[in-house]
Amino acid sequence: MSSAKRGPGRRPGSADTRGEILAAARKVFAEKGFDKATVRAIAREAEVDPALVHHYFDTKEGMFAAAMQLPITPDQIIPTLLEGPREEIGARLVRMILQVTAAPETREPMVALIRSAMTNEQAATMFREFISNALLFQVADRLDVPHLRIEAAFAQMYGVIMGRYVIKLEPLASAGHDELVELLAPTVQRYLTG
Amino acid sequence: MSSAKRGPGRRPGSADTRGEILAAARKVFAEKGFDKATVRAIAREAEVDPALVHHYFDTKEGMFAAAMQLPITPDQIIPTLLEGPREEIGARLVRMILQVTAAPETREPMVALIRSAMTNEQAATMFREFISNALLFQVADRLDVPHLRIEAAFAQMYGVIMGRYVIKLEPLASAGHDELVELLAPTVQRYLTG
Repeated sequence: MSSAKRGPGRRPGSADTRGEILAAARKVFAEKGFDKATVRAIAREAEVDPALVHHYFDTKEGMFAAAMQLPITPDQIIPTLLEGPREEIGARLVRMILQVTAAPETREPMVALIRSAMTNEQAATMFREFISNALLFQVADRLDVPHLRIEAAFAQMYGVIMGRYVIKLEPLASAGHDELVELLAPTVQRYLTG
Repeated sequence: MSSAKRGPGRRPGSADTRGEILAAARKVFAEKGFDKATVRAIAREAEVDPALVHHYFDTKEGMFAAAMQLPITPDQIIPTLLEGPREEIGARLVRMILQVTAAPETREPMVALIRSAMTNEQAATMFREFISNALLFQVADRLDVPHLRIEAAFAQMYGVIMGRYVIKLEPLASAGHDELVELLAPTVQRYLTG
C-alpha cells in the first residue's frame, strides 16, 4: 500500500483506501493502545471521513484484527465458543485454538503480535487491551466467570502455543490435536465452569 | 568483566577468571545450544584449564544459570519440588514459581532469557534444551510422568508469568499468591499425578 498522503479531493473508495485506513489504524493503535484509539482518530490520521472507515470495518475489533493481519476476529471466535453444550466449552476452546494456530499463515501474524508485546511496552499495552476487552472479558462476562479464571485459561493456551511453536518443546510441538484436547480441555473447563 | 583475552601465563583464579568463564559460557551456549556445549569447549573459549571451570561450577546446569544470571538452579528447584507429600506437589510448584518471580531482581534475568528465546532462533534452541533436559525431564522422570504432561504444567506457569509480568493482564497481575495457588495448583497437580 502507498504511504503517500493525498488531499481530501481524492475519490473515496479508491484502490488503496482500505490499506491507508489500516496503516493509519496500526499507527493510532500503537500510539494510543486499543482502548483509547477511536474510529474518529483513525479517520483523521487516514484523512478520510469516519463514515468511510465504518464502510470498510464494522467494529474497532475487526479493524484491529485486519490491521494486525489476524486471521480471525473476536466476533468469529466468541459465538463458536459459546454455542454448544457448556460442559464441552473447554474442549471447543482448546480445539479451536489448536486449529487456528496450526497453519503458519494464520499463526504467524498472532505470533508476531505476541513477539512485539514481549519486547515493546507500547505493543504490550495494545495487546493487553485488545485481548482483555475485545476477547477475554467478553467471554468471561457472557459465561458469568470471574476475569481471573478466563485469564488462567488464556495463560494455559498461550503457554501451549509458545511452547509448541516458538520454544518448540518436544513432545509438545509434535503432539496431535486429539491428545492435546484430552490433556488440556479439563483444565480450561475447570476454569470456566468448575 | 574484561573482554580482553590474556595468554595462558596469567594467574589462575585471578579476580575476573570466573567472569571470563561465564562470558565464554554465554558464547558457547549461544553457539552450540545447551546440550552440545561442553565444559571443555567453554574452558578452551575462556583459555583456562577445564579443571578451573570445575573449580568454579559443579555442573553445566549451574554454569548456565550463572551465565544467564538466573537466580536459582535446577539443583535447587528439583529437590524442593520433590520433597513433601506428592499430593501437594502442584501447590508447591505454583508457590515456588510465584515466589521466585515476585522480585524484579530474580525475575528479570528469566524474562530476559525468555524474550531472547521468543525473538532469536539460537536463543530458543538454548532455552529449549536447558528447560527440557536440565529441568522438565528431570522432574518428569523422577515423578514417572510423561514428558508431555510436565510440559503442559510448564505451559500453564509460563503463560501465567508472561500474563502477569510482561502483558500485565488484570486482575492476573495484581492477584495474590494464595489466590493463584488455589486457582492453579489443581491444574498442575492433575498434570503431574492425575
